Amino acid sequence: MKTVTILGATGSVGTSTLDLVEREPDRFKVRALTANCDVANLAAAAIRTRAEVAVVADESGLPALREALAGTATQAAGGRQAICAAAAGADWTMGAIVGCAGLEPVMAAIAHGGTVVLANKEPLVSAGEVILAAAARSGATLLPADSEHNAIYQCFDFARPERVRRIILTASGGPFRDWSLDAMADVTVEQAVAHPNWSMGAKISVDSATMMNKGLELIEAARLFPVPHERIEVVMHRQSVIHSMVDYVDGSMLAQLGPSDMRVPIAHTLAWPDRMATPMEPLDLVGIGRLDFEACDPVRFPALALTRAALEAGGARPAILNAANEVAVAAFLDRRIGFLEIAAIVADTLACYDPPAPHTLEAVLAIDGEARRTADEQIRGRIQGRVKVHA
Amino acid sequence: MKTVTILGATGSVGTSTLDLVEREPDRFKVRALTANCDVANLAAAAIRTRAEVAVVADESGLPALREALAGTATQAAGGRQAICAAAAGADWTMGAIVGCAGLEPVMAAIAHGGTVVLANKEPLVSAGEVILAAAARSGATLLPADSEHNAIYQCFDFARPERVRRIILTASGGPFRDWSLDAMADVTVEQAVAHPNWSMGAKISVDSATMMNKGLELIEAARLFPVPHERIEVVMHRQSVIHSMVDYVDGSMLAQLGPSDMRVPIAHTLAWPDRMATPMEPLDLVGIGRLDFEACDPVRFPALALTRAALEAGGARPAILNAANEVAVAAFLDRRIGFLEIAAIVADTLACYDPPAPHTLEAVLAIDGEARRTADEQIRGRIQGRVKVHA
Repeated sequence: MKTVTILGATGSVGTSTLDLVEREPDRFKVRALTANCDVANLAAAAIRTRAEVAVVADESGLPALREALAGTATQAAGGRQAICAAAAGADWTMGAIVGCAGLEPVMAAIAHGGTVVLANKEPLVSAGEVILAAAARSGATLLPADSEHNAIYQCFDFARPERVRRIILTASGGPFRDWSLDAMADVTVEQAVAHPNWSMGAKISVDSATMMNKGLELIEAARLFPVPHERIEVVMHRQSVIHSMVDYVDGSMLAQLGPSDMRVPIAHTLAWPDRMATPMEPLDLVGIGRLDFEACDPVRFPALALTRAALEAGGARPAILNAANEVAVAAFLDRRIGFLEIAAIVADTLACYDPPAPHTLEAVLAIDGEARRTADEQIRGRIQGRVKVHA
Repeated sequence: MKTVTILGATGSVGTSTLDLVEREPDRFKVRALTANCDVANLAAAAIRTRAEVAVVADESGLPALREALAGTATQAAGGRQAICAAAAGADWTMGAIVGCAGLEPVMAAIAHGGTVVLANKEPLVSAGEVILAAAARSGATLLPADSEHNAIYQCFDFARPERVRRIILTASGGPFRDWSLDAMADVTVEQAVAHPNWSMGAKISVDSATMMNKGLELIEAARLFPVPHERIEVVMHRQSVIHSMVDYVDGSMLAQLGPSDMRVPIAHTLAWPDRMATPMEPLDLVGIGRLDFEACDPVRFPALALTRAALEAGGARPAILNAANEVAVAAFLDRRIGFLEIAAIVADTLACYDPPAPHTLEAVLAIDGEARRTADEQIRGRIQGRVKVHA
């Protein structure tokens, strides 16, 4: 029996993970489930899976959680501290808490050891060095659940990284891959969250639309796989059937293909190094018919060059980029800034200052906080500028 | 230093292997090189690589070989017996002798142990059981150099074959993939040997054109990989960029892609489990643009159903099919029969008789000989029938 903890059990990745875990009750035993504030779904999942612990981050939800779990074997807890405590202790931990809120719990899981699955880019992008050092200390195995990195993981020969010539990250190009720059200026929130291939949360959908998501994945790949970042390429592949590839020095390129369903990479991490059945229909390549490959347009998608530069400069730059992007995307979703302003805000924030590299989680969180304030100032500056122009 | 023997050193696969071996003289040391009758190229390669032994199968070529190698450290030998003797003794042996003539030398290499690379389908198709049993006895590792099987080998988890859902063999479809059945009846030898993606020998080019090649690969795959043959599918992929795929129960499909150059799979087997550099340009997917997948047409390409049936029936049927096909292809290349008659001759030969399964190499060779005579009778019968019709 593998003990399983899901940090962020009520989100999109969390429910996909639960779906898989619940299919094989003889193989997986749930230790802890956590949620931000969705008490109803958290309690229901804990009861179904007979979880040992259920934790709600928002402490105001604790009384309701206690009530829902009364008479069950599941212990209820609340608060961020309790989430970090619950994060340590399982053989396998899914880190699916969105944004920088997931950093501390994931660090707790890594310090405990075992297998820790990273479903979000933020921890590796903002705190890559710190996370990798912690994993090296505890002996934890980090597995990526992101479909691209999971694909690379399945194709990468960790025993001989020097034989890898290139990593090729595939990018769907998002909903605006065929739009002109002019048309992209007027993109609405509704258009930006409607991804052509994947059903995802709003923030990551917008990141796909700006291709900032691919840029963050570029940084993530450089952290996870021991190859110089210049050897990580991005290719547009609109069908999202090939999730990514590893090219070896002998000319062999290995690729992982699969349906656009997060349960495929999650199942890989859950059963790893074994495999487990999932309910998806086998991929029908004849039905799909064709796979296309195109170059990415750096003019319409400046996020790619921004992230490449942040990765190259290293230090605090990826953390600043990530924090500024979170703030800018939130402002876009609030209809405060336009779609093309997201990358502009990130660039402006990066141009503001250049703090030293963070070597502790506290330093990462300080940089994250400062970057958020700076990005917010940039946004307010832009909005005020617009008001003046209109007045 | 890995010691290397190349059986069939002057053919297409042999010269590709030599090209790679000669690039890394500190890694590979040539033990034996053999050829059928091309003394000039055999001697030249032996001198360049300082091979220990050079053997020509056609004994009439031995005096010339002796003369060419006079004063060098390479020993000259001649005859089939000498080829079998030279086949045993290297760490790594390439079995690239075309047709059933390669059976005995490959068996000698397998009995010796080490890594034996199978570049031709015939040994596994005709003598699959016998070869696998011999490898199990000696502990030899069999590696496939055929691009499709090599691709599968790179993607297959031998520790967990039960987790493989499907093997998907890709087929270019050959030069007549878009021709009508009527047009295919009038195919010339020149048209049949002009493969759209690969530069190969005449026999295998014709096999590609009839798709008998893919059928033989289906049988070969069923021998090499521990999955039931019903789970091996064939998909037409005209660009030959994805060389084959393995689909796992979790929905992940692993694929190997590469340029259409035999040096890629050969390099994989030569360096295995490590990798070695090859001189090919990295695969340019953006330049290639698109990959297509189509179903194979069983009406225009009856070879696929013929081979599937022979595989299903097992026993002597694959050996008969292979021998009949060799005879029929030779008759087509001699312009004695038409293109569509190749599969018909194979079907007719299989319908003639049903001998018991061969369990020794001698029994395989007896079945092979009988099938050749029977196929030849079928061809003569057809030609006579035509003469009568025309008279």
